[in-house]
Amino acid sequence: MPEIPSMMRASVLRAARDLVIEQRPTPSAAAGEVLVRVEAVGVCGSDVHYYQHGRVGDFVVDAPLVLGHEAAGTVVDVGDGVADSLVGSRVSIEPGVPCRHCRACRSGAYNLCPDVQFFATPPVDGAFAEFVAVPSDFVTALPDTVSTAAGALLEPLSVAYWACRKANVRPGERLLVTGAGPVGLLVLQVARALGCTNVAVSDVAQQRLDTAAALGATSTHLAGTDPLPSADMLIECSGAAPAVAGGIGAVGAGGRAVLVGMGADEAVLPVSRIQRYEISVTGTFRYASTWPAALDLAASGAVELDALVTSRHALADAQSALELNPASGHIKAIVEPHR
Amino acid sequence: MPEIPSMMRASVLRAARDLVIEQRPTPSAAAGEVLVRVEAVGVCGSDVHYYQHGRVGDFVVDAPLVLGHEAAGTVVDVGDGVADSLVGSRVSIEPGVPCRHCRACRSGAYNLCPDVQFFATPPVDGAFAEFVAVPSDFVTALPDTVSTAAGALLEPLSVAYWACRKANVRPGERLLVTGAGPVGLLVLQVARALGCTNVAVSDVAQQRLDTAAALGATSTHLAGTDPLPSADMLIECSGAAPAVAGGIGAVGAGGRAVLVGMGADEAVLPVSRIQRYEISVTGTFRYASTWPAALDLAASGAVELDALVTSRHALADAQSALELNPASGHIKAIVEPHR
Amino acid sequence: MPEIPSMMRASVLRAARDLVIEQRPTPSAAAGEVLVRVEAVGVCGSDVHYYQHGRVGDFVVDAPLVLGHEAAGTVVDVGDGVADSLVGSRVSIEPGVPCRHCRACRSGAYNLCPDVQFFATPPVDGAFAEFVAVPSDFVTALPDTVSTAAGALLEPLSVAYWACRKANVRPGERLLVTGAGPVGLLVLQVARALGCTNVAVSDVAQQRLDTAAALGATSTHLAGTDPLPSADMLIECSGAAPAVAGGIGAVGAGGRAVLVGMGADEAVLPVSRIQRYEISVTGTFRYASTWPAALDLAASGAVELDALVTSRHALADAQSALELNPASGHIKAIVEPHR
Amino acid sequence: MPEIPSMMRASVLRAARDLVIEQRPTPSAAAGEVLVRVEAVGVCGSDVHYYQHGRVGDFVVDAPLVLGHEAAGTVVDVGDGVADSLVGSRVSIEPGVPCRHCRACRSGAYNLCPDVQFFATPPVDGAFAEFVAVPSDFVTALPDTVSTAAGALLEPLSVAYWACRKANVRPGERLLVTGAGPVGLLVLQVARALGCTNVAVSDVAQQRLDTAAALGATSTHLAGTDPLPSADMLIECSGAAPAVAGGIGAVGAGGRAVLVGMGADEAVLPVSRIQRYEISVTGTFRYASTWPAALDLAASGAVELDALVTSRHALADAQSALELNPASGHIKAIVEPHR
Repeated sequence: MPEIPSMMRASVLRAARDLVIEQRPTPSAAAGEVLVRVEAVGVCGSDVHYYQHGRVGDFVVDAPLVLGHEAAGTVVDVGDGVADSLVGSRVSIEPGVPCRHCRACRSGAYNLCPDVQFFATPPVDGAFAEFVAVPSDFVTALPDTVSTAAGALLEPLSVAYWACRKANVRPGERLLVTGAGPVGLLVLQVARALGCTNVAVSDVAQQRLDTAAALGATSTHLAGTDPLPSADMLIECSGAAPAVAGGIGAVGAGGRAVLVGMGADEAVLPVSRIQRYEISVTGTFRYASTWPAALDLAASGAVELDALVTSRHALADAQSALELNPASGHIKAIVEPHR
Repeated sequence: MPEIPSMMRASVLRAARDLVIEQRPTPSAAAGEVLVRVEAVGVCGSDVHYYQHGRVGDFVVDAPLVLGHEAAGTVVDVGDGVADSLVGSRVSIEPGVPCRHCRACRSGAYNLCPDVQFFATPPVDGAFAEFVAVPSDFVTALPDTVSTAAGALLEPLSVAYWACRKANVRPGERLLVTGAGPVGLLVLQVARALGCTNVAVSDVAQQRLDTAAALGATSTHLAGTDPLPSADMLIECSGAAPAVAGGIGAVGAGGRAVLVGMGADEAVLPVSRIQRYEISVTGTFRYASTWPAALDLAASGAVELDALVTSRHALADAQSALELNPASGHIKAIVEPHR
Repeated sequence: MPEIPSMMRASVLRAARDLVIEQRPTPSAAAGEVLVRVEAVGVCGSDVHYYQHGRVGDFVVDAPLVLGHEAAGTVVDVGDGVADSLVGSRVSIEPGVPCRHCRACRSGAYNLCPDVQFFATPPVDGAFAEFVAVPSDFVTALPDTVSTAAGALLEPLSVAYWACRKANVRPGERLLVTGAGPVGLLVLQVARALGCTNVAVSDVAQQRLDTAAALGATSTHLAGTDPLPSADMLIECSGAAPAVAGGIGAVGAGGRAVLVGMGADEAVLPVSRIQRYEISVTGTFRYASTWPAALDLAASGAVELDALVTSRHALADAQSALELNPASGHIKAIVEPHR
Repeated sequence: MPEIPSMMRASVLRAARDLVIEQRPTPSAAAGEVLVRVEAVGVCGSDVHYYQHGRVGDFVVDAPLVLGHEAAGTVVDVGDGVADSLVGSRVSIEPGVPCRHCRACRSGAYNLCPDVQFFATPPVDGAFAEFVAVPSDFVTALPDTVSTAAGALLEPLSVAYWACRKANVRPGERLLVTGAGPVGLLVLQVARALGCTNVAVSDVAQQRLDTAAALGATSTHLAGTDPLPSADMLIECSGAAPAVAGGIGAVGAGGRAVLVGMGADEAVLPVSRIQRYEISVTGTFRYASTWPAALDLAASGAVELDALVTSRHALADAQSALELNPASGHIKAIVEPHR
């Protein structure tokens, strides 16, 4: 292992569209923590939104913030009470650490902990930095068959897996995925990996539908043009109001609708349909206890993560990753802090 | 047993506010059926709505219709394959008979059967008549401790129990019931019978809130005036748009909202809240396999049904039951076809 | 369509090891039924057991019995109320028709119906015959990608799928399958199709373990020699007492054990372990509402059925199928009644 | 508040039947903890077993051990990060503190944490002492309507509630409780509080059955003499082998059996019955997240705890509580450390 430097570089968002590289003290691993050399960080739509607008909903960047919450790297040090043998392991990082004491945490729903510390959510810094320290139970060692970039993408894969769990995705039923961005494409792949063979995908962009078809969508539907097909389950990944209402309108008796895409605070929903067919509607907020499953899905090849990576960027170049044009066909950018 | 007459009286709705007594052939018990002498029929809001408007949503009274679906009486005859010993039993009637063959039926969700034959839903006649024939597995014998009127009210009790099941009502959590009509008051009682000791009730009418308080509500809230209290579970029984949106707004992390009251086809819902707190929203459409539980709750006295009966009407007088002023404090009217 | 003959051939078991071909009247399709020309019937261990011993547990062959309950064929006629368009469809047959009226049926657990009529279970005849009549909702049309033999094997696939559902098989957890006969091999395949990538298989026969390894087992364990690996889920497919007790002994905290293999009436179980780790132990009895999922799994290729077929037999030769030596490496024999 | 003394008295078990009062340093409240003045401690069968045998299963008293894990008292001090306002609160103590980091903890099943620190389980001391320090999220404030002794008994009430949750106790189904000791009597009461009106209780002692009848059992059955009645759910609270096997033998299709009573490591179970009727068998190990529900049940009067207290003992007299003759009709002894 090389020396751990006392100072490190971090990419800091000072305000909307104001991103700079700063030198900051390298964090150290407190008791129960590991220090991770960050080697790959996926760029999420929320990172882009913070960069463009300086806020996401009620979360406002009113102090300098390090973005990035889809991260993987190598353990370079451990704090008290953590096995030395972890040093040298390539690991995926789960980026939200809950309080472990509240009612939500104790019931297993730690994603709903009101005091969770989540990467890149003001005022908590994220992983566009050379090193981060995290509790040892929030890293998962990667086998050789999973690349470090794929390790970073276990985070969005967790989002997708959590949504599929909420929707009770399974063989013998039909899934509709609205929105074919990174999360929608991962939902599609997870659904197939769970044995659901009938997955329709809709999007406003034909290019994304082509990608969905290549990844195994049973049918694709151009939003606004093609009608949505009937389904037993909806996983809404666009956040677009017509997809929310139209998607639920496509769900049949006893169906489940899971809203993943972030959109407006309120939406008009077909409540009499929800009643008449006893459709269950819920949303997802991150995930809980998903890393073992996500790792299995990635390591087995059931879900293909590396193929979603369309560009790689040095830390000094993080801005280019945040400014990629979504219409250009890119899917997932990776920032590599040590490049 | 007295002779079964060949003709019987039925109260027939020919159009909105056009209710007449007709002589009709007494039905006979086909194979697998029992013939029930109808002795008590509760009047439901949907009966009143058909009477007033000649329709409920897409269901239109375009041919004469017998109302009434909350019914109990005495078995007076049995068809082939049904034990003679049933004759003489006082029974509660489950008023919707499904096809028993479709995917919904075979999975146990027979309330979602697209071909269900449900009393007093065009074109299927209901129980405002002296006799009805029903499959023997859709009647439940009543013990001596349950009155015939209470037997009729096992139907709305089933509605309430089904809603509590969907909401996973249980001790240690807080329930908010919006709407203190007959169903809301039954939900309140069922919730307490299931060990949920913290039940807040809201309504626009103080009189109903007083009844709720007398039946064990922990707190009552005048809708539009008092704020709604925080809750883990919402059971919405009013159908009023502000109660739907406001009620979900009161539900916290991991909570459940069940929409029972019928209102507009669409409603504005706080979807970002549903996502942020992973609130599960669903509706109920009637019930399935609830009679054993409803009977237990009534027979044990855990739920008080007779106290909800505020008036009794002869068949010829069914119109008076349908025209009761909801502001007058009445809760549940019973039609007694043999009076 | 060729004429339907008035008489047909059936293979009839008169007593243990006394199997003859008889001429019997061709059944006709009653109201709601279809008449199926039987073209492929899998041979199950229970068929072999009836053949060898004249009984399975309390079910005794005290009158001539037609064996065979894993069946597929072509619809050649329909009864009243069934669409003519079904004629000509290749279909898989679900072989147990429940009463549709009892509490189990109405709750969706129709496999637990006390009055179920199940093929090849005294006194109900099975499918080693040229034609059978079944309710139209107990046949499932096969797409071109599923062979008729595979259609027959949707039945044991249903057994396997039902077990995986009971065990809540999923990614991120470890499954142990004890017994690598046809059902165990199907459980293995279904588990992988459901995204469970860690499946250990044990058996007393190395040859079967080799087949399991070829079908994707993560590890194989020679029973009685190798220790059983730790698991989160056990699906016991052998019926052998050591596998039952040892398998549960391998299951960890919060785990699930599902007993599929039939063995002795009683077994010694590690109850303090079941308590200490809150292990859930249950068994399966056939299946309910599994055909849609089974068909999806087969049609998508996620589960390979045709590869399990190791021999094919004419009806007159059914005895040869029932006398195959299990040590010979065969997995699944198919009887083709029209050969 | 009086001064907190630097030394306190504790009742220490040095070996089987060797119990002495020792002076020990009063613990202090570490960060996140509260210091509780212990005012009531229920005596559990496991305490008696440790006292009599110096061990419970694999847990051996090989160093001095303080017994007692059903405890309540008053908060007299708080550690860093805990609100001062808690001082003075009467509280019930949840006696098992898990690691909060392992897979079981993070999934909500913290009772299965392999590193849990549980009162009165070697080498962790219990509550037969004047003061104990516990994490603030493991105490629950008691309302005026719940006595401190009842607060202590929220612990066995949690055991009972957890068992009822595992058994999915509900109206419309029949429960059989085998064993009418303190836990069995609490299960009976909880079941009724959850709306289950049909609760049969069996025991070898008529006196206990009389108590069960007084507390609302529908029927009572003298074990070994009366046959066990059919049931949908079994909660086994005796640990006796005949009750385990016989109880499961009484459970019908789709039923659930929950083993709470501790007995032999192994038992003969009717596995073919478990399979034929798809009975689910599991056990309980303590409980998780039950205090809110237990408190609701006690505070509402739905479960009567004070009536179970049959004797009260000073700390110096703890031995008398541990030597009570179970045949004498006592149910629950309370040790009051400050008397």
